[in-house]
Parts: sequence; C-alpha cells; structure tokens
Amino acid sequence: MIPLGNLHVVLVSPRNPLNIGAAARAMSNFGFSRLRVVNPYQVAFREARSAVRASALLASAEEYKTVADAVADCALVVGTTALRHRELQHPLRRLEQGARLIRKQTASGGVALLFGSEKRGLSNADLSHCHWLMRIPTSEEHGSMNLGQAVAVCLYELVRNAKALRSATKSPATTSGEVERITKMLFEALLASGYVKPRAAAASMQEKVRRLVRRLRMQSADADVWLGMLRQIVWKLKSE
Amino acid sequence: MIPLGNLHVVLVSPRNPLNIGAAARAMSNFGFSRLRVVNPYQVAFREARSAVRASALLASAEEYKTVADAVADCALVVGTTALRHRELQHPLRRLEQGARLIRKQTASGGVALLFGSEKRGLSNADLSHCHWLMRIPTSEEHGSMNLGQAVAVCLYELVRNAKALRSATKSPATTSGEVERITKMLFEALLASGYVKPRAAAASMQEKVRRLVRRLRMQSADADVWLGMLRQIVWKLKSE
Repeated sequence: MIPLGNLHVVLVSPRNPLNIGAAARAMSNFGFSRLRVVNPYQVAFREARSAVRASALLASAEEYKTVADAVADCALVVGTTALRHRELQHPLRRLEQGARLIRKQTASGGVALLFGSEKRGLSNADLSHCHWLMRIPTSEEHGSMNLGQAVAVCLYELVRNAKALRSATKSPATTSGEVERITKMLFEALLASGYVKPRAAAASMQEKVRRLVRRLRMQSADADVWLGMLRQIVWKLKSE
Repeated sequence: MIPLGNLHVVLVSPRNPLNIGAAARAMSNFGFSRLRVVNPYQVAFREARSAVRASALLASAEEYKTVADAVADCALVVGTTALRHRELQHPLRRLEQGARLIRKQTASGGVALLFGSEKRGLSNADLSHCHWLMRIPTSEEHGSMNLGQAVAVCLYELVRNAKALRSATKSPATTSGEVERITKMLFEALLASGYVKPRAAAASMQEKVRRLVRRLRMQSADADVWLGMLRQIVWKLKSE
C-alpha cells in the first residue's frame, strides 16, 4: 500500500465548485485525503453537494494563492495534461508509468499532483513548477476530460495494483461425475419427451448429449439444482 | 486496438441527466460511441450540458424500457458494483481482470457494461441479466462512486494497455436474446413439471433461473439445440 497521506491533489484555478466536490469524492473513494485548492474562481466551494460523503475532506482542503505556495513542501510535482505534443521542455509520461514513479516517491516524501482549470488546463506558468507531466491516454480527437473524471482516473491508476490480478471468486467447475449424472438424466428426459427416439438412442446420440453438457462449463454449486430440475421433469414425463 | 464499437455502455435507471452527459463525455474521451439508456428518470437527458464535445454521442444514445431489451444482442453482459460482498451467485472480478475478459469478448461479439442508478446501483433483477460483476477497487469505507466517474475509470481500464489484447479464437458465446429464450422455455418446463409451483412462479424464481442459465456460458452454436430440446419437453409435458 502506498502512503496515501503523502499525495496532495492540487486543483489549480478550478472554476466550478461541483468539480471540486467531485474531485473530493473521488479522493475519498480511492483513499486519499489531502486536497489543495489554488486560487479558486468561486470562493464558496466548500459546500459543493457533489462531494458526496466527502464533505469533511472538502472542508479540510487547504487554500493557496499561488502554485508555488501549494507545492512548497513537496519533493515531486507532477502536472496532468490531455495534450500529446506540448511545446515543452517537460518529460511527458503515460499514466501507468507516471503513477509508478509517484508511488515510489510517496514512500519518502510529499508529492503534488496538479490539475488545471476546466477551460485551459495548466498554464505555462503552472507547468514551470512541475518536474514532469503525465497524460491520460484519451483519444486524439477528444482529449480533454472533465476535471472530476480526470482526478478519478489518475487516483485509480495510483491505487490500482497491476499485480493484484487475483482469480475471481468463482465457484469450482463440476466434476466429471456430476456432469455424467446430469447427462444421463437429460438423456432420459429427451427419451421420455420423444426428442430422442428409442431406436436412435444409440451410443452416438448419447455422446452428442454428453458433449453438449460438457461444453456448458457448469459450476459445481449449480449441479445439484440442474439435476433436481431434470429429475422432476423426468418424473412428470413418465408419470402419465 | 479493441473493436470499441462492440462495447455498449448501458446506464440503468439513471436519475441525473448531468451524469448521463458526463458518461457520454468519458466515452468520447476514450473512443467509445455506443450508449444505451434504460428507463431514465428524466426523459429530457439528451441536452445535458455535461456532455462537453460529446453531444452527438448523447443524441444517438439508444433508449430501452428494460434491461433485457438493452442487452438482447450482446453475448456478454457485465454489471458494475461498488460492493465487495454481495450475497450473489455471480463471480466478482477486479476491474483489471474483468477488463481483460471484456477486451477478449469484444473481438468476437457485443458486450454490455451495466451501470446502475446513482442511488441504489444495479438491482437484483438487473443483476440477473449479468454473466459476472466487476468491482472498481474503491476503499472499504467509501465505495460508492459518482456515476460519471465510475464510467470514466472503467473505460480507462479498458483502453489502458490496448496492446495486451490477444485475439480470441473461441466459438462465439450466445447472445442475451438467445439465453433469454432458453430461460423462458426452461421456466415453462419447470412450471409444467411441477418443479416450480404456480404460486411460487414469482419474479424472484424467474431471476434465479435466469442467473442459473447465464452461468452456463453456453456457446451460440448450441443454443438452438437446447431450445429445441426444451421445446419438445414442454410440448410433451403439456400434451397430457
């Protein structure tokens, strides 16, 4: 786990309080808590209703007049951008790569992650405070993301653990014995219903049904249910 | 590159048009274009201003009355959830793992990615249409994400290492329409055989059967065979 307290989300000149609230909510979702706001367009952003269940986080946001002040205590300052080819002297990293570097840095000190205003993103003056830039891989035609969504995606990438590809909580597959019992019961139902004629009830037809049931990849937990259903159907078919 | 046109983002009973617009914007950002809306709370969602530079996408969104209709042409239906421990029979996968499976499936057929309403998420009835569920790794204390942000994070994960996509060589899976027809026929057989009592033939029992059939992961080539078998069984059960 990364020391999430060392990461500061810094919103530079945000215009819409709803976006500030949405950023706060995403921070809370992904376990971050330290929000800094530089020179917001609307001063009364702390009541933003979009900060669902993150109002305490929003209330404790720190306000700064300049980017320089907001990042003064941070060892690494990273700017976010939607653009591919800024005429900049800054290294531009893909989100996955940038997030890895940020995770490393948070182990030893403060990191500021800067997001620009909704309209223009980070200005050249803002960018001059950054060590490097990070780009979310949006499409060439429509790169510019909503501020709250951009914050959510970046923070997700920070907490995502690429190695944590644990297997899903899937129920084990049926054993061959279970599958065979189901196959037999199904075959009886097919005979009793007339789908399979007694004459044609040769080995080849049985094999066809067996393969059909095998291909289902039934879960073990469901096998008894299927068997019960088929048993009832067979009983009913034969009882008349 | 994954065939993005095969992925349908399906918003089920969304309440706030601004969230629908935000979802459309995120889709556009990440190169997706096919939005479906089931039973929206406000009918006039198409003018949502939050769909910045995605108004055409929003205007072409398809509207449906039911989840069944919205996913009928899809071979894989995936639900999203913030919860860790649903009392469900559905496999629950982490986002990275789920996204990998979705990318595979889009190579051969339609995939529906379902997002529930802002207040309650997906209902049990909605979930009964899903093959499995996918969870964004949000914190235990505050799992529930804003709808537009959840859409953004899921789509980001889908396009994020697009290179990792291997082509699928599997036989195509059944569409939801086929599975639904089989579900209905099976339910008739269960009623006619007495396995399900008419009294108990409530929605919950139908959902149980629907989930049971979904879990089979039946192949499309087999769907007609199963349907034919069940049809014959039902005919025989009723003919006496």
